[in-house]
Amino acid sequence: MARIGIIGYGNLGRGVECAIKQNADMELVAVFTRRDPASVKVLTPGVTVASVADVADWKDKIDVMIICGGSATDLPKQTPEYAKLFNVVDSFDTHARIPEHFANVDAAAKAAGKVALISCGWDPGMFSLNRLYANCILPDGKDYTFWGKGVSQGHSDAIRRVPGVKNGKQYTVPVEAALEAVRSGSNPELTTREKHTRECFVVLEEGADAAAVEQAIKTMPNYFADYDTTVHFISEEELERDHAGIPHGGFVIRTGQTGWNGENKHVIEYSLKLDSNPEFTSCVIVAYARAIARLSAEGVSGCKTVFDIAPAYLSPMSGDEIRAHLL
Amino acid sequence: MARIGIIGYGNLGRGVECAIKQNADMELVAVFTRRDPASVKVLTPGVTVASVADVADWKDKIDVMIICGGSATDLPKQTPEYAKLFNVVDSFDTHARIPEHFANVDAAAKAAGKVALISCGWDPGMFSLNRLYANCILPDGKDYTFWGKGVSQGHSDAIRRVPGVKNGKQYTVPVEAALEAVRSGSNPELTTREKHTRECFVVLEEGADAAAVEQAIKTMPNYFADYDTTVHFISEEELERDHAGIPHGGFVIRTGQTGWNGENKHVIEYSLKLDSNPEFTSCVIVAYARAIARLSAEGVSGCKTVFDIAPAYLSPMSGDEIRAHLL
Repeated sequence: MARIGIIGYGNLGRGVECAIKQNADMELVAVFTRRDPASVKVLTPGVTVASVADVADWKDKIDVMIICGGSATDLPKQTPEYAKLFNVVDSFDTHARIPEHFANVDAAAKAAGKVALISCGWDPGMFSLNRLYANCILPDGKDYTFWGKGVSQGHSDAIRRVPGVKNGKQYTVPVEAALEAVRSGSNPELTTREKHTRECFVVLEEGADAAAVEQAIKTMPNYFADYDTTVHFISEEELERDHAGIPHGGFVIRTGQTGWNGENKHVIEYSLKLDSNPEFTSCVIVAYARAIARLSAEGVSGCKTVFDIAPAYLSPMSGDEIRAHLL
Repeated sequence: MARIGIIGYGNLGRGVECAIKQNADMELVAVFTRRDPASVKVLTPGVTVASVADVADWKDKIDVMIICGGSATDLPKQTPEYAKLFNVVDSFDTHARIPEHFANVDAAAKAAGKVALISCGWDPGMFSLNRLYANCILPDGKDYTFWGKGVSQGHSDAIRRVPGVKNGKQYTVPVEAALEAVRSGSNPELTTREKHTRECFVVLEEGADAAAVEQAIKTMPNYFADYDTTVHFISEEELERDHAGIPHGGFVIRTGQTGWNGENKHVIEYSLKLDSNPEFTSCVIVAYARAIARLSAEGVSGCKTVFDIAPAYLSPMSGDEIRAHLL
């Protein structure tokens, strides 16, 4: 039985709690929060809610700590800090800063004799794995990643910062024609605009100028200016009724050639269609937490990514069982 | 530079040779054949063709031997035998006999201090990996594997054994409606007949009774009786012109539920569309040969499957590079 702790009880923390319930060999023992612990109610009976300030008291009572903070400011500090006390898993997703985060976490984990896994989830995570496998199999080829249809938290936040906007949600939508062109093996060069569209559902403040809001969104640099963006104005009730979910997903495709003269074409495609982005991310994290507990028991230490973990470590089944049933 | 040998120079052996050409850190040094070596012409300049009887002479000149025999009778003997002399990779695909083959190869490889990888390719192989990952991520879910559209060698052989048949080729075709039902998350229970159809292209012997041949094919137990089978009679010229390739592919899908009450649905899908089944299988094998060479250099021995190999071992890039570019 692997004893799991959670730091941070937002959408991701709750997702991890739900995922642990589905894995009979894992047990949630405590949730740590920056809020007043008395104000946080968890779903699992018998689980302690404690202050994150007291986390060191749990040093010998938790096999793997899952850190559910944000990538912008929480994880760069939290993961190296808690890797001094626990085996840890995070979902750090700022791709450009992964090398730096890896180095910091690796130093802390090695010094403490702990194992840390960073950047776990689906992108980075399962999408990264599929990019790696496909690149190794088809060295002469081309990669494509599409996201959606799904809610982008960053773009939804950007909409909500526009003056006159009361609330809003943004969906990233892959362009079907671009997907088809990629699958055909024609190796298209696709611009940002050709790959994805952006669809916004916006609730206006009373008296706001719809045309000005639409213009402000569509021309916003980095977020929307490079895309074909649609803005729908809806009521707060419609937003709550029709857009409460956090779906996401996407496609990783590699096309390539084999044969003495590259005469044969191949398409490898991996796709996800997710009703709940944080719950699916949590499921990936919990499977890798099992692997981390095992690696730690074998005496391994330092920082790992999904690239470093043999798949068998993720499964509750024995080697004999997975060879008999899944190979 | 990993020095690679090939035992058996059929479609798979030639595919391995082509794949090695695409990998700058690998070098084909010799091809071993049961035929007269003088009768075998390989594509790569400077490569020795030798008799398989002399393979022991190459003990210290080859880092990984890729065994390209058949699963029915060759590999159960060859892989344990050559694992006494070399690190080896095979593509053993008789699913039901994998546990027995694993045990035999493991004993031989361990005794010799060699590493062996069995059942490498796409099914078993990449499809197995995707079944394992998806099962670990979504414990509450259901697996589906579909094959095709592609040529089944076994079914094509079965057609050619029917009296009155001069030549023939069989395609396994997934039923689109079944795929869509699975992707919808409705967790359908699908019969053999509902999942795949079989399409046969048959060249008759002169004077053969077409109706009798068609009846014999469609009612053949194990191979065709449980499927909706279509038989097309064509000329030898048409068969050569339109059906010379060996395409294949398929789909591994897992659907599952997450959330405290299973309220959110998810679909994980992996698919392959391959112009050449043996060349793609070869590409997977060669990527894993790189991993086996590395594991051997680390002092590992015994039998492995794709489940036991951390993905980073497959890549010619360093850990820093894959984290920076693929994570």
